[in-house]
Amino acid sequence: MTALVTIGEAMAVVAAERPGPLTSGAALHLAFAGAEATVAIGVSRLGHTASWTGRVGADSAGTMILQGLRGEAVDVTRARVDASAPTGLMLRECRTQDHTRVTYYRHGLAGSRLTPDDIDPELIAHARILHITGITPALGAGPRAAIRHAVELAGQAGVTVSLDLNYRAKLWSRQDAAAELSDLVTRADIVFASPDEATLIVPEADPATMARALLELGPREAVLKLGAHGAHAVTDEGEAVQNIVPITLVNPIGAGDAFVAGYLTGHLDGAALSTRLHLAATCGAFAVAAHGDWEGLPRRAELDLLLGQDVAR
Amino acid sequence: MTALVTIGEAMAVVAAERPGPLTSGAALHLAFAGAEATVAIGVSRLGHTASWTGRVGADSAGTMILQGLRGEAVDVTRARVDASAPTGLMLRECRTQDHTRVTYYRHGLAGSRLTPDDIDPELIAHARILHITGITPALGAGPRAAIRHAVELAGQAGVTVSLDLNYRAKLWSRQDAAAELSDLVTRADIVFASPDEATLIVPEADPATMARALLELGPREAVLKLGAHGAHAVTDEGEAVQNIVPITLVNPIGAGDAFVAGYLTGHLDGAALSTRLHLAATCGAFAVAAHGDWEGLPRRAELDLLLGQDVAR
Amino acid sequence: MTALVTIGEAMAVVAAERPGPLTSGAALHLAFAGAEATVAIGVSRLGHTASWTGRVGADSAGTMILQGLRGEAVDVTRARVDASAPTGLMLRECRTQDHTRVTYYRHGLAGSRLTPDDIDPELIAHARILHITGITPALGAGPRAAIRHAVELAGQAGVTVSLDLNYRAKLWSRQDAAAELSDLVTRADIVFASPDEATLIVPEADPATMARALLELGPREAVLKLGAHGAHAVTDEGEAVQNIVPITLVNPIGAGDAFVAGYLTGHLDGAALSTRLHLAATCGAFAVAAHGDWEGLPRRAELDLLLGQDVAR
Amino acid sequence: MTALVTIGEAMAVVAAERPGPLTSGAALHLAFAGAEATVAIGVSRLGHTASWTGRVGADSAGTMILQGLRGEAVDVTRARVDASAPTGLMLRECRTQDHTRVTYYRHGLAGSRLTPDDIDPELIAHARILHITGITPALGAGPRAAIRHAVELAGQAGVTVSLDLNYRAKLWSRQDAAAELSDLVTRADIVFASPDEATLIVPEADPATMARALLELGPREAVLKLGAHGAHAVTDEGEAVQNIVPITLVNPIGAGDAFVAGYLTGHLDGAALSTRLHLAATCGAFAVAAHGDWEGLPRRAELDLLLGQDVAR
Amino acid sequence: MTALVTIGEAMAVVAAERPGPLTSGAALHLAFAGAEATVAIGVSRLGHTASWTGRVGADSAGTMILQGLRGEAVDVTRARVDASAPTGLMLRECRTQDHTRVTYYRHGLAGSRLTPDDIDPELIAHARILHITGITPALGAGPRAAIRHAVELAGQAGVTVSLDLNYRAKLWSRQDAAAELSDLVTRADIVFASPDEATLIVPEADPATMARALLELGPREAVLKLGAHGAHAVTDEGEAVQNIVPITLVNPIGAGDAFVAGYLTGHLDGAALSTRLHLAATCGAFAVAAHGDWEGLPRRAELDLLLGQDVAR
Amino acid sequence: MTALVTIGEAMAVVAAERPGPLTSGAALHLAFAGAEATVAIGVSRLGHTASWTGRVGADSAGTMILQGLRGEAVDVTRARVDASAPTGLMLRECRTQDHTRVTYYRHGLAGSRLTPDDIDPELIAHARILHITGITPALGAGPRAAIRHAVELAGQAGVTVSLDLNYRAKLWSRQDAAAELSDLVTRADIVFASPDEATLIVPEADPATMARALLELGPREAVLKLGAHGAHAVTDEGEAVQNIVPITLVNPIGAGDAFVAGYLTGHLDGAALSTRLHLAATCGAFAVAAHGDWEGLPRRAELDLLLGQDVAR
Repeated sequence: MTALVTIGEAMAVVAAERPGPLTSGAALHLAFAGAEATVAIGVSRLGHTASWTGRVGADSAGTMILQGLRGEAVDVTRARVDASAPTGLMLRECRTQDHTRVTYYRHGLAGSRLTPDDIDPELIAHARILHITGITPALGAGPRAAIRHAVELAGQAGVTVSLDLNYRAKLWSRQDAAAELSDLVTRADIVFASPDEATLIVPEADPATMARALLELGPREAVLKLGAHGAHAVTDEGEAVQNIVPITLVNPIGAGDAFVAGYLTGHLDGAALSTRLHLAATCGAFAVAAHGDWEGLPRRAELDLLLGQDVAR
Repeated sequence: MTALVTIGEAMAVVAAERPGPLTSGAALHLAFAGAEATVAIGVSRLGHTASWTGRVGADSAGTMILQGLRGEAVDVTRARVDASAPTGLMLRECRTQDHTRVTYYRHGLAGSRLTPDDIDPELIAHARILHITGITPALGAGPRAAIRHAVELAGQAGVTVSLDLNYRAKLWSRQDAAAELSDLVTRADIVFASPDEATLIVPEADPATMARALLELGPREAVLKLGAHGAHAVTDEGEAVQNIVPITLVNPIGAGDAFVAGYLTGHLDGAALSTRLHLAATCGAFAVAAHGDWEGLPRRAELDLLLGQDVAR
Repeated sequence: MTALVTIGEAMAVVAAERPGPLTSGAALHLAFAGAEATVAIGVSRLGHTASWTGRVGADSAGTMILQGLRGEAVDVTRARVDASAPTGLMLRECRTQDHTRVTYYRHGLAGSRLTPDDIDPELIAHARILHITGITPALGAGPRAAIRHAVELAGQAGVTVSLDLNYRAKLWSRQDAAAELSDLVTRADIVFASPDEATLIVPEADPATMARALLELGPREAVLKLGAHGAHAVTDEGEAVQNIVPITLVNPIGAGDAFVAGYLTGHLDGAALSTRLHLAATCGAFAVAAHGDWEGLPRRAELDLLLGQDVAR
Repeated sequence: MTALVTIGEAMAVVAAERPGPLTSGAALHLAFAGAEATVAIGVSRLGHTASWTGRVGADSAGTMILQGLRGEAVDVTRARVDASAPTGLMLRECRTQDHTRVTYYRHGLAGSRLTPDDIDPELIAHARILHITGITPALGAGPRAAIRHAVELAGQAGVTVSLDLNYRAKLWSRQDAAAELSDLVTRADIVFASPDEATLIVPEADPATMARALLELGPREAVLKLGAHGAHAVTDEGEAVQNIVPITLVNPIGAGDAFVAGYLTGHLDGAALSTRLHLAATCGAFAVAAHGDWEGLPRRAELDLLLGQDVAR
Repeated sequence: MTALVTIGEAMAVVAAERPGPLTSGAALHLAFAGAEATVAIGVSRLGHTASWTGRVGADSAGTMILQGLRGEAVDVTRARVDASAPTGLMLRECRTQDHTRVTYYRHGLAGSRLTPDDIDPELIAHARILHITGITPALGAGPRAAIRHAVELAGQAGVTVSLDLNYRAKLWSRQDAAAELSDLVTRADIVFASPDEATLIVPEADPATMARALLELGPREAVLKLGAHGAHAVTDEGEAVQNIVPITLVNPIGAGDAFVAGYLTGHLDGAALSTRLHLAATCGAFAVAAHGDWEGLPRRAELDLLLGQDVAR
Repeated sequence: MTALVTIGEAMAVVAAERPGPLTSGAALHLAFAGAEATVAIGVSRLGHTASWTGRVGADSAGTMILQGLRGEAVDVTRARVDASAPTGLMLRECRTQDHTRVTYYRHGLAGSRLTPDDIDPELIAHARILHITGITPALGAGPRAAIRHAVELAGQAGVTVSLDLNYRAKLWSRQDAAAELSDLVTRADIVFASPDEATLIVPEADPATMARALLELGPREAVLKLGAHGAHAVTDEGEAVQNIVPITLVNPIGAGDAFVAGYLTGHLDGAALSTRLHLAATCGAFAVAAHGDWEGLPRRAELDLLLGQDVAR
């Protein structure tokens, strides 16, 4: 039995070392990223089993991604190496210390070739949580069908479905996203959204109101991620707000996925809402205190490092 | 009037700093490459005017490429920024010190969106040499038509056409390449080929025989590039062989294009065959003595550095 | 016709990678700098033509500087390679994160060998703006005569003269600077100064008062650069204040020249004072958000990145 | 005659370049550290003679440490190369930008093999200050005896004894430390302590009260180091508080030792208490403005850089 | 069932980036190493299951090692995290390009705390090969007993025992090694040795003679590793010699372990002696063509890169 | 008493990290160099006392040089910090792996401001060897007078004078050099020269003949340095030839000075000619096996590393 099962795209990241426009000769480093992979790594580092399903190319980047996930003890036995297209890649420029610019090489590449056949029914049926995001259905018909299939299987098996809306404007229109994601929300048990993402599904309002509106569509828990303002959760246990855990910022990318990893780990721990939110905020703080999307995520024994720092900055 | 006009694709290069498999966290650096761009830079560094026509995306990589070419005093006023697709990119792994592995992101990207409309008839009509390679027609129907159009214009204006066969097995089959390149050879004045590439057009034989066979198809000069064995040229001035110029090898990539740049510069200098070949070999030596495809190319005043080294290694 | 013509010194920069005293083995990187070159690059990146006149040595640093300017589409056809002395160089130590220390190698070197003969009357006569700084006349008799000659030519042709006082205490005394710069101010249309520099020319007072006093000497516009406090401009269009555009600081060097580039670009755009000042502040923000003096300067399409951030920090 | 004599352990430091968990392939750099060595370097850079006594191994790390100290003009003629054990080493991970984690390799290694035989009575007898810390007696019986012996010799010769409590929880219990350090306090003339360290010796109270309580045990001067809150000193000259000197923080490690170096230099200068404290705070600011424990320490001529910055942040 | 089971020590490696003596500020990088771990990685990369048993500390280095092995798909479920001592570490200086110098921090540390309790009888009983080296018994009584126990279990289960003598002069005397290793040789099925190591067990002679002498003690296969001269194997299938596979050398460390990995993979493939030896030599070539002990080891699909290069250099 | 006293210029070195033309953004590192300083360091590392006299500027480079020499235990108490000019600097480009290009910033700078007043008569009178090179008298009238004065003092005291001709074509003509160096040769006891340098003084011939001709002018020992061909010495003890000690070349700069350091150390050891030459060749090998001019020089205990390698490559 794997505690958390997630499905999505993982890509190579080629990221600039220094702020400023990219120039010939600029120093870069290689990494990998994927919202779902980050959640899987976060949950695994905190001690629960996690599995990632997706496709990578039969190339160096694909090998690197599987090696990285495996190193983090994420089960990749359901990941597929697809020799028909390269692994996706993003070139990340740090235009200023505060502004990242990305060129994506993902269209038609391995990660978007996911199909329902890639989904392992047994894996899902025995999971405690299936976590998906709004990125995967935006990648094409195959990934969309795969996600629907996975959610269907989870529903049949009574597995908790966690959905992070994660709207990506470069991949699809707000209209298309609203249609697909609205349907997924009705099938989800836990929904994560930024205020802007929430307005794809419910009328614009303050976070608490939007969270309550999301709950009316089916989910048991709606967590609004408010960036520097923390988070606001509405659940059948009640409501709670969470400030960010203060830390010196190195790189803001990945904070939202780290938050989700912490929150879902709290679920797997059987923790109460306030504890789940605090673990979520702590994971977010660790994530932004290091370079990379997931590299800074905490292991269980490291959580103490940030103890007693849960105050508004 | 621009002495050398060339047309082709230029891509971002993301290259590993150290030999070994790519891993998460690996150090990389950014550069750009393109066989035709390398020739233009080589000719420009040696003091003749050169122009490059091609498409890049409206992104950081495209900006970097145009900035780099402009810095080398290559005219890019006919290059087009195409906002409909990203600039192509290649991820270069140095698997061992002796074996490079590349993943290409070029299919459907900006460089392959070239069309005959991108060709400036005035520019070609007033050039002394039009240089093309067998890579561009392999990129798609648009680039193929663009090259045919440019060669047509050069023919009408009596401009010397230089063709480097540059067969790329990842882009098209030997059959397709043979058909298209055979036609281009008949329209070219100068042809460069490796022995393997020559067999696309003429029966396999020793370099001298193949060079002579190429000449019978129309060109005035056929230069067989023999790698570590130098070069063998057959022209209407006669035949000549050229050893490589010995130097400590840093990176073999780009040697062939550097060779072409030197040879064509010799033409623009009005130099005799043996001088052209020696300049070609010298440029090849400079290219492999530095990292990058074109970064090591010599300026005129630097040629003396390697003087007196024209001996077989 | 070139929109902006500027004349000055450009030097190689050898800059420490890390804060702390320089030690044997310390990592450095190479760059180039020059107040006037930065302005030319800034104007060029924002879409107007710009030309730089000056001397570099016949060495690697000189080649690097011309290549860099050319890459930025700055016209360097009037720059001269002077084989009689090396290109100037500065060694920049980052003694603490907040304190830079520089050793200059510029005395008698190529940049200071500028003479009136280097000035192209045609270039100036057809420019819209001639931009000069108080650094060049401090470099010696030749540069001083060259600047006077250029200003004379601009005056005859009715070309707008922009002067950034840029007092450098290591190059000349306040008395010498006051004498020369006072004369230049009377011939300038636009004057930029820090409060301290302004006191070379007018009595010490608050920025607005000093700006008004400068205007009485001849210029139509006086812009006091107030560092972290923004800027205060007094022009025949009226007065305006400008806050800085907030951004995470990477390296403060070059902010003042970036400001000038933005302001003069606004002029070339035909923009109103408040727009010129805002563009100036935005360029300053981009400059300090990256390493290097000019590397972070924005292109036109990038200005949006900082939109809506024009508030006092 | 050497102005300052100090005795202790110096270790190699292997420190991560970037924040985040250590991974295979991570970039590190080599340095060395030791509380007493930092004090010796600080005093030497400010112009007084300083000597360091301790043991290093007959290995590359030992050579590096002696070379480094010698380069700083610290007398190492009494340091001993002990071939029976390697030089100690610490592996320093920057877990987040704000949290350092260290693995020590010091148990039984060269630095802990110090014995009373290593102490040069002549050197101490002619010194003006003997500086010791609470780290050395925690390293084992030999170092403890060596420190007692040195303090005895200093007492006999009327040499000022400076003691920085420097409690290290990884090396000994609070009980053991309290017993040994209480005895050393009674023999010291100057005592430095953090509030937490002070409670090993005197009852917990506000800094001023604890400093006064320390004075009653024998010392003439007690300086409480309060981190970001500056320092509070109680001496027979009176009491004084000192704010930190504001500076952009690069690395907080070594601030306390730098403070001591500045304070003791003030003593050697014959300066008054407020001047000693200000010099101490200035040294602390320099130390944290660069990477490394001691690398950023100021030379006398550099002190001006931070002049006029003695305000609370 | 795991194809290859191995037991040993793995340590953090801190290695210099550049040749020359280590100095303060020198660039290093982190890696890990261990003869048995390298064999496990090599076998795993070539497609067979492999498991590593050993102890690491509860520290960053231990986490890094387990993460690295897991990333390579080596089973580490039997590895133990021992909080009572740090993970071993070696500081590797590249004194010249050709001479490495190492300081070891391993005495009493986690890797040497292995005991027979760490050995999983089930794992060994179901393995096809148990691979051990002469390093582990040299680490202390516990590791020695653990190895004896593992060999005993393998013998009972009829599992092939592979032994690489790997004599380490810094760990024990030739006498002690000879006594222990002679006993292990009698229990082994496959023995690897350098000529010097072989003389611990059998009289000094030419490689073939020594290999035959080793066979008389019990093993079915004796492989003499001859460095740049290749290898000489004597088995019950007959004898064979193998030249090295030529490649540009980057770092010779790890070649011997890579050779063993290739040879044992050949066994698991069911390959003939000449194929096993060729695979061994190919693995050795890959290992020395990259930095690190194991980082360059080939995956199955990469073996073709070196095809046709099996000639004496 | 200091065993070896030397006088000369030391400069900052800013050296490229990678082969190829210098570009904006290129990685560099800082070091220092000076033929005489290299000899002093070499002798000091091998265990004899050495002192260096010269001038550096009151800047970061000057501090770095003195710190570096002091770290190597070279006595710099006679070195002078001259605030009237910056420390000299050279910018070193690695144009190809085999060709270095240098731009010097040394004219009129601190190192060339040496005067006879800088020479300490006591120091020289008690030395065993005074070592000078042909570089210092080429720097100007002051340094030339200083060298003459030092040689005069050595002659009076019966101190051995060692002279390395070290002709630098960028500093003076062959005629000027011949005149000055011929005079110094007559006053020297030991002369080092390349064949080309020897022809400044004696007629061109084979090395042995030229060495003998040099001996006729006064010296007791003439050592011809033949680069890759080793060395040929003619002394009153007889003649000897020495091959180079083979090693993988990293950087050839500094080999000649390292050779001199080894040879003179042999003298201070009281060793025979063949031993002196072998030590010289060993030092040369160490020097070229690391980056930098002197960084790779061996310590006494390291000499064994290259033992048994004294064969022609």
